[in-house]
Amino acid sequence: MKNPTAILLLHCPDKQGIITDVTRFISDNHGNIVYLDQYVDTVDSMLFMRIEWELDGFLIPREGLRTYVNALFSDRYDMSINVFFSDEKPRMAIFVSKLSHCLYDLLARYNAGEWNVDIPCIISNHEDLRYVAEQFGIPYHVFPITAENRAQTEQAELELLRRERISFIVLARYMQIISDDMIREYPHHIINIHHSFLPAFVGARPYHQAYERGVKIIGATSHYVTADLDAGPIIEQDVVRITHKDTPESLVLKGKDLEKIVLSRAVTKHIERKILSYKNRTIIFG
Amino acid sequence: MKNPTAILLLHCPDKQGIITDVTRFISDNHGNIVYLDQYVDTVDSMLFMRIEWELDGFLIPREGLRTYVNALFSDRYDMSINVFFSDEKPRMAIFVSKLSHCLYDLLARYNAGEWNVDIPCIISNHEDLRYVAEQFGIPYHVFPITAENRAQTEQAELELLRRERISFIVLARYMQIISDDMIREYPHHIINIHHSFLPAFVGARPYHQAYERGVKIIGATSHYVTADLDAGPIIEQDVVRITHKDTPESLVLKGKDLEKIVLSRAVTKHIERKILSYKNRTIIFG
Amino acid sequence: MKNPTAILLLHCPDKQGIITDVTRFISDNHGNIVYLDQYVDTVDSMLFMRIEWELDGFLIPREGLRTYVNALFSDRYDMSINVFFSDEKPRMAIFVSKLSHCLYDLLARYNAGEWNVDIPCIISNHEDLRYVAEQFGIPYHVFPITAENRAQTEQAELELLRRERISFIVLARYMQIISDDMIREYPHHIINIHHSFLPAFVGARPYHQAYERGVKIIGATSHYVTADLDAGPIIEQDVVRITHKDTPESLVLKGKDLEKIVLSRAVTKHIERKILSYKNRTIIFG
Amino acid sequence: MKNPTAILLLHCPDKQGIITDVTRFISDNHGNIVYLDQYVDTVDSMLFMRIEWELDGFLIPREGLRTYVNALFSDRYDMSINVFFSDEKPRMAIFVSKLSHCLYDLLARYNAGEWNVDIPCIISNHEDLRYVAEQFGIPYHVFPITAENRAQTEQAELELLRRERISFIVLARYMQIISDDMIREYPHHIINIHHSFLPAFVGARPYHQAYERGVKIIGATSHYVTADLDAGPIIEQDVVRITHKDTPESLVLKGKDLEKIVLSRAVTKHIERKILSYKNRTIIFG
Repeated sequence: MKNPTAILLLHCPDKQGIITDVTRFISDNHGNIVYLDQYVDTVDSMLFMRIEWELDGFLIPREGLRTYVNALFSDRYDMSINVFFSDEKPRMAIFVSKLSHCLYDLLARYNAGEWNVDIPCIISNHEDLRYVAEQFGIPYHVFPITAENRAQTEQAELELLRRERISFIVLARYMQIISDDMIREYPHHIINIHHSFLPAFVGARPYHQAYERGVKIIGATSHYVTADLDAGPIIEQDVVRITHKDTPESLVLKGKDLEKIVLSRAVTKHIERKILSYKNRTIIFG
Repeated sequence: MKNPTAILLLHCPDKQGIITDVTRFISDNHGNIVYLDQYVDTVDSMLFMRIEWELDGFLIPREGLRTYVNALFSDRYDMSINVFFSDEKPRMAIFVSKLSHCLYDLLARYNAGEWNVDIPCIISNHEDLRYVAEQFGIPYHVFPITAENRAQTEQAELELLRRERISFIVLARYMQIISDDMIREYPHHIINIHHSFLPAFVGARPYHQAYERGVKIIGATSHYVTADLDAGPIIEQDVVRITHKDTPESLVLKGKDLEKIVLSRAVTKHIERKILSYKNRTIIFG
Repeated sequence: MKNPTAILLLHCPDKQGIITDVTRFISDNHGNIVYLDQYVDTVDSMLFMRIEWELDGFLIPREGLRTYVNALFSDRYDMSINVFFSDEKPRMAIFVSKLSHCLYDLLARYNAGEWNVDIPCIISNHEDLRYVAEQFGIPYHVFPITAENRAQTEQAELELLRRERISFIVLARYMQIISDDMIREYPHHIINIHHSFLPAFVGARPYHQAYERGVKIIGATSHYVTADLDAGPIIEQDVVRITHKDTPESLVLKGKDLEKIVLSRAVTKHIERKILSYKNRTIIFG
Repeated sequence: MKNPTAILLLHCPDKQGIITDVTRFISDNHGNIVYLDQYVDTVDSMLFMRIEWELDGFLIPREGLRTYVNALFSDRYDMSINVFFSDEKPRMAIFVSKLSHCLYDLLARYNAGEWNVDIPCIISNHEDLRYVAEQFGIPYHVFPITAENRAQTEQAELELLRRERISFIVLARYMQIISDDMIREYPHHIINIHHSFLPAFVGARPYHQAYERGVKIIGATSHYVTADLDAGPIIEQDVVRITHKDTPESLVLKGKDLEKIVLSRAVTKHIERKILSYKNRTIIFG
């Protein structure tokens, strides 16, 4: 098995010496740095950094690392800090409705061992995809949603998510609006796939909108869910060329391939802790 | 020199026998068909067709061809018809403001003989690019535009266009709104390049809008100009991937390459008479 | 259910009147044409055509259609002809070794009803992916291959294919050379996915070759299998941009997404009978 | 005018503390870092770094900077070092033969002020493109090449390059082999554009090779010229989708747009000193 590592994600106003300070702190404590990437946003004068080092031989015990790093840098540099450990797998919940293509793509990767993640549950407002969950042996929970029961249903879902200690949520073509409550509980931890090249074709039936507008390229967009519909920070986008021969139906089919790939790329980056959000934009480390 | 050809572009409600009828008409009159492409829009039940044949040996004289074809098919099939001859070069006017990249790209192709077109004039609201026109020996006409003189300036431009027998107009990053008068005189014959992936980022400063929204891909769109700003039929689009490292300035630079290629592809298709517009969409023959 | 259709795929030396003749034959016999696409290869002066019409009300009985069409056109135009019926599902066999990503992608589409196809069996030289076949309830046959038993194993495979009346084969990252016997039995009916942008990086470990060469883009290629390794007619290719940060391992991961999409696009076109092969190239109808 | 900067490009075996050491050296001498990007090749355990800082207020005089940096780091870290100053413009020579599209693209950018570069001369083996050079007012030198005079002609070219203090060469579809002498004098400083997706279709007439092979995508590749034909380190590649409808001639036309964009992207990166070569691969800083 690979050596466990610590991952530090930070951002702060850019000042001389920060990179030196952070790398020196790790080196001085015998941490072997295996990844370092930083980016300075010269428009906003902000520094973003991801640094990863092996825990083996590192002098500071992992239990105290978060506190230690915060004490060292947080106030001094007005720094936002996140610390992760590679051997603490994130726990991912998948929300689905009736379309199977994204769900299959996620589960096929999970089964093939591509991701350092656990998937303890799949949640849906419909029974339709239970058979897929059963194919992969993952518990499938149905919460039918009506206009009347929406609020209390979401509370039940939140309880399940807490009970399963879910760290982030993937909406795999889930056809319901997420409430502000859930967004607040998972800020920048709910990943959606929207079946258009945002900000074009916000809202419902984007492929039909694309057909009506006569575009020559369609796209898909994965983004973090915020209170504004389809307006959260974009993680990944991709496109495919179409022609006048495409009908709304063929756009739906072509789009499915985009959606599943774009969603899975976003999930990969999230699991690897390679995304930082700032001012409704994302910094994606390579 | 190549054999001159006749090009027939048509569309009509789809019915059995139209393709047979049209091809038989050409064959029976000893026309050698060198290109045939048709497309049936099954959503709207419309047939679109482009057929091209050699004039050499064709029994119907070219002077009478338009009348003849209209008489044969127009009423019978409720058909819209356009006839072109390959040896009648379209005459293209270029409108520019201050940016040179699209203009250079158009003129470099023109000079290299890539296009079957004449460019008798370049029109601008600024003196800035006169030196480019002079490099290529093309007359450059400046019409300064102010809030007060807009209407009469456009009339002067229209007179110039008529005098030069201009058949279509290319807006090569021309930074003025085109009046309804000019659009009516050149319906679906004014090609614009918009520096975004329409319908995303309509209007001014699309690269800055793209930066603010945090997209991961930017685009450019060439389209026919209609009365609705940036909403005419799309001819061609292309995109390029960007990252969080891009600033508004670097987007402008990357976008320039997209703009010039996308505009020139649209101009190529227009010159080759391979575009049909229908219901704000374009059929682009291959 | 949709109206069953007949599909005619043909190619022949280009001559005047063929399209007229073929469409007239269908119209005269009360066939409603729902698809017509043709292409003339001007380099080789060959005509390629795909035409599809509804069988309902068509005057010629389907049992006799192949004979009838051949008698009408085959000699007269030196024409190669294939007739299919939309309600006769092709039967597809999948060959796999140890990698699951393409297999999952194929079966997820099959399960979602995207394809007009039956998949009666999956064949492998290893036990590894039996669990995937079982998830989808499809018989999984293992034929271990050694240097000694290769010839007789392939005979056993061929017998299974015949017994199951397999019409075409998909090699979903199957890591064995296909024998000339099997290729002869399924000429241009075995679809392979090669994990490079052919003809670059023929043979083994193409991602490692790509890494060594320092390319900036990697690709995947689906093609029909012929006696020449990785040299058969290409059906579909796609690419993805990489950087100097990619390792051979990350190329393998990025490539997997390409492979499964490119393979499935090729399978889609094959199932829809939209591919014609000629001189080691493919005509792909839209 | 922008503050002049110093740019340090380095690579060496990866060891703890190098980044700290280098950034500290600059900070301690009052250099304001405006760019820092580094990359660790974990396969070869090599560190690559580009760092740029403002010279204004920097304590070490620029005349001595190269010596100083070498003395500090070169031996200690087994480091390869290059120092550039942003106000020392590189001097670029363009070699052309008969095709104008790349030349126009380079000169249009140069004229628009996109690049921090001087272009004191254009060199050709033909008179054909003298008119383009004259349009832009750049001296055009013709060196006709025959089998007999090749060696002495190249010596004359080299003398011109030295006299003009040329720092790097761009082959803009120059149709002659570059001699080993010239390559030795400009190691990794000659940029070529090859009109294929290397390593596919090395050598002559790649579009015709692509047509014969029936690929579905064509590409272009810019690379540094080394003694091995078309085998030097790749700087940039791009591709465009084609179909069975493309002829060798239409591939040539589509390819031209690729070639000029891909070549200009490579030239941009070279001028910005954002390329490091290592083991026949390039590291391209963002």
